Amino acid sequence: MESVWKKLTEEQNKEVKRQMATYTQGAQEIIPTEELEVKVAKSVMEKKPLKIKLGLDPSAPDVHLGHTVVLNKLRQFQDNGHIIQLLIGDFTGKIGDPTGKSVARKQLTDEEVKHNAKTYFEQFGKVMDMDKVELHFNSKWLSKLNFEDVIQLAGKITVARLMERDDFEERIALGKPISLHEFFYPLMQGYDSVVLESDIELGGTDQHFNILMGRHFQEKFGKEKQVAMLMPLLEGLDGVEKMSKSKKNYIGIDESPQEMYGKAMSIPDELMVKYFELITDLSPEQLTKIKDDLASGELHPRDAKMFLGKTIVRMYHGEEAAEKAEKQFISVFQKGTMPEEIPVVQWEGDAKVPVIDLLVGLKLLNSKSEARRMIENKGVKIDGEKVEDMQHLVTMKKDLIIQVGKRKFLRINI
Amino acid sequence: MESVWKKLTEEQNKEVKRQMATYTQGAQEIIPTEELEVKVAKSVMEKKPLKIKLGLDPSAPDVHLGHTVVLNKLRQFQDNGHIIQLLIGDFTGKIGDPTGKSVARKQLTDEEVKHNAKTYFEQFGKVMDMDKVELHFNSKWLSKLNFEDVIQLAGKITVARLMERDDFEERIALGKPISLHEFFYPLMQGYDSVVLESDIELGGTDQHFNILMGRHFQEKFGKEKQVAMLMPLLEGLDGVEKMSKSKKNYIGIDESPQEMYGKAMSIPDELMVKYFELITDLSPEQLTKIKDDLASGELHPRDAKMFLGKTIVRMYHGEEAAEKAEKQFISVFQKGTMPEEIPVVQWEGDAKVPVIDLLVGLKLLNSKSEARRMIENKGVKIDGEKVEDMQHLVTMKKDLIIQVGKRKFLRINI
Repeated sequence: MESVWKKLTEEQNKEVKRQMATYTQGAQEIIPTEELEVKVAKSVMEKKPLKIKLGLDPSAPDVHLGHTVVLNKLRQFQDNGHIIQLLIGDFTGKIGDPTGKSVARKQLTDEEVKHNAKTYFEQFGKVMDMDKVELHFNSKWLSKLNFEDVIQLAGKITVARLMERDDFEERIALGKPISLHEFFYPLMQGYDSVVLESDIELGGTDQHFNILMGRHFQEKFGKEKQVAMLMPLLEGLDGVEKMSKSKKNYIGIDESPQEMYGKAMSIPDELMVKYFELITDLSPEQLTKIKDDLASGELHPRDAKMFLGKTIVRMYHGEEAAEKAEKQFISVFQKGTMPEEIPVVQWEGDAKVPVIDLLVGLKLLNSKSEARRMIENKGVKIDGEKVEDMQHLVTMKKDLIIQVGKRKFLRINI
Repeated sequence: MESVWKKLTEEQNKEVKRQMATYTQGAQEIIPTEELEVKVAKSVMEKKPLKIKLGLDPSAPDVHLGHTVVLNKLRQFQDNGHIIQLLIGDFTGKIGDPTGKSVARKQLTDEEVKHNAKTYFEQFGKVMDMDKVELHFNSKWLSKLNFEDVIQLAGKITVARLMERDDFEERIALGKPISLHEFFYPLMQGYDSVVLESDIELGGTDQHFNILMGRHFQEKFGKEKQVAMLMPLLEGLDGVEKMSKSKKNYIGIDESPQEMYGKAMSIPDELMVKYFELITDLSPEQLTKIKDDLASGELHPRDAKMFLGKTIVRMYHGEEAAEKAEKQFISVFQKGTMPEEIPVVQWEGDAKVPVIDLLVGLKLLNSKSEARRMIENKGVKIDGEKVEDMQHLVTMKKDLIIQVGKRKFLRINI
């Protein structure tokens, strides 16, 4: 293997170094880095693309910026001509949870799996070139395994090794039951890599154990072992918990430029650099400059964050939308005025409406209790005036402006 | 369930008690006895036979008296009209050991499995009525399971439960690896009972865990649970280790009347009653009488043991052979003379033969070193004269008698 280095031309060697600098940027762990370098070197020398695998849960196709940490990394590989293997774990999705205890693992129909895969594809298209992506469904090979095949597979791993997985270890320590079928999910993920002959598998750090299964089984099946590439988990807008839909601390990649920009501005300062590193398309040089300038005080954190917001909007809505979102933000939040464009709703109801009913009726807030809380927190303005009375009766008229929180505006038309 | 008792006639009730007395005789553990009683009661009332399962390893068809402990128990069920389900575990046999580490679990071909099953059948025929036995091969259903079925099955048991099996627990404690596929052998055995809808599964005490798997899975699949019936393991002629071919402490059910009788006489006195109980066809009343008479001193242990030997020979070779074996034993061992019938071999070799070559050539002993040892131990006689010289040259002639040990005789014909 090592002999590959001797055969590289100086130019090829430079190219390997360049690619490695890109790939290692932001990655939390690469197991092992040396093997990645050898794979890249061989690929450069033989002009043979590497196969980069990403496994996807078929049941959760809502994509937010937390997911783009790995997607951006995949994009980098793609930019260098490597092949992306998207693996939809539909086999497990179709089985569901045989014990019926896990709500998360509900059984999916073929149609749901297809629909979810399509949703992934559409959303991923905002980060990657989907024409150059291979799409795989693991039911294709897993559903063909019979009992004997399964036993052969199970013969290639020990119980002790499986119990090393953090969550298993923890449950054993707590005396919580592990159903035997659960041992098979890491086996499947590993076997998928055997079938796909993946060179690299990407995932969040929470996939550490499962991705190493790929290495284990590839070796047992006499194949070249994949490299595990683990990306950090991105904290959400709260700065504490992993970004997720259920925690409501996310920026969805389908959101409007204004929402995206506004949410980006609410990221805690400490996380800014991490966001730059993990979810933007800036080059290593640009990143270094931002870090240096922030450290030296040459770049104000507020300006850096505005650049972050603008960059995110640019990535998902284009240059023009990014400029506009920035301008709008400056006019509303920095100058204290309203945005230039406010959505208009046609009002067909009563001439006078209790403020709480109005807020819920216009779907500015989800419930009366939310509306009450917002008024209590002085977050509701009618025509620029703070509402302080819960019982306030709003007189409806054309061009009435209703504002909730910092970023939600509506203009009434009658 | 309990209501079955109220519906039984007095006569039926007596019949249940009679059957229960037979079945519980000699059984080490019945889990649970109450369920067995209910099953027997229902069977008597509804005139519906019970299904009694015995699982067999397809790789070891050499049957000795150790095996007949369960076979005799099956015979008792059969005598009362119940159905015996012999289950050949050919699925595991065909798979072998996927890790290749277990020599015992070598992969068998279809032909070997068939041949071994036939051997079982022939040999079991000496204990049971094979016309009334169902023969099943678990590959019939196990080979049809696909990965999804396996996962559904695995979802019905926890890892903790499997790790309770003594040998797993021990290996975990010693840090010895358990390959994941090993967890599937008890699952298969349990699933076999689901398919066969067995009422009772018989086995040695070493099958405790595996047989309870049948109860577990039958319940999970919504079926009536089988009763586990565990028979003691029979110590071999050495009185210490479990009777087995590899330990050479066994009495094979294919052996000659003389061998059987002679070996029976070498059983340690302490084990005699256990042998009577577990491997003979004596009635509970006969057994009680033997125990009582031995305890009171009315029956001499030597006489009891001779009756044991005679009973065993009668069971496998008939009344006449039993009488003859006893007579012969008395004449040789008690009176110190030769048996009445000595096998004759035709001699075609040299007129003078070194004694060691002769013993090995006639297959009286397996090797020259064994022959030397036997001469050293003064166990070789030619025409009644002890051979003491290793180099002794035997002059071959008609009716020359060669004796090795206490029981092997040959008469030369020229």
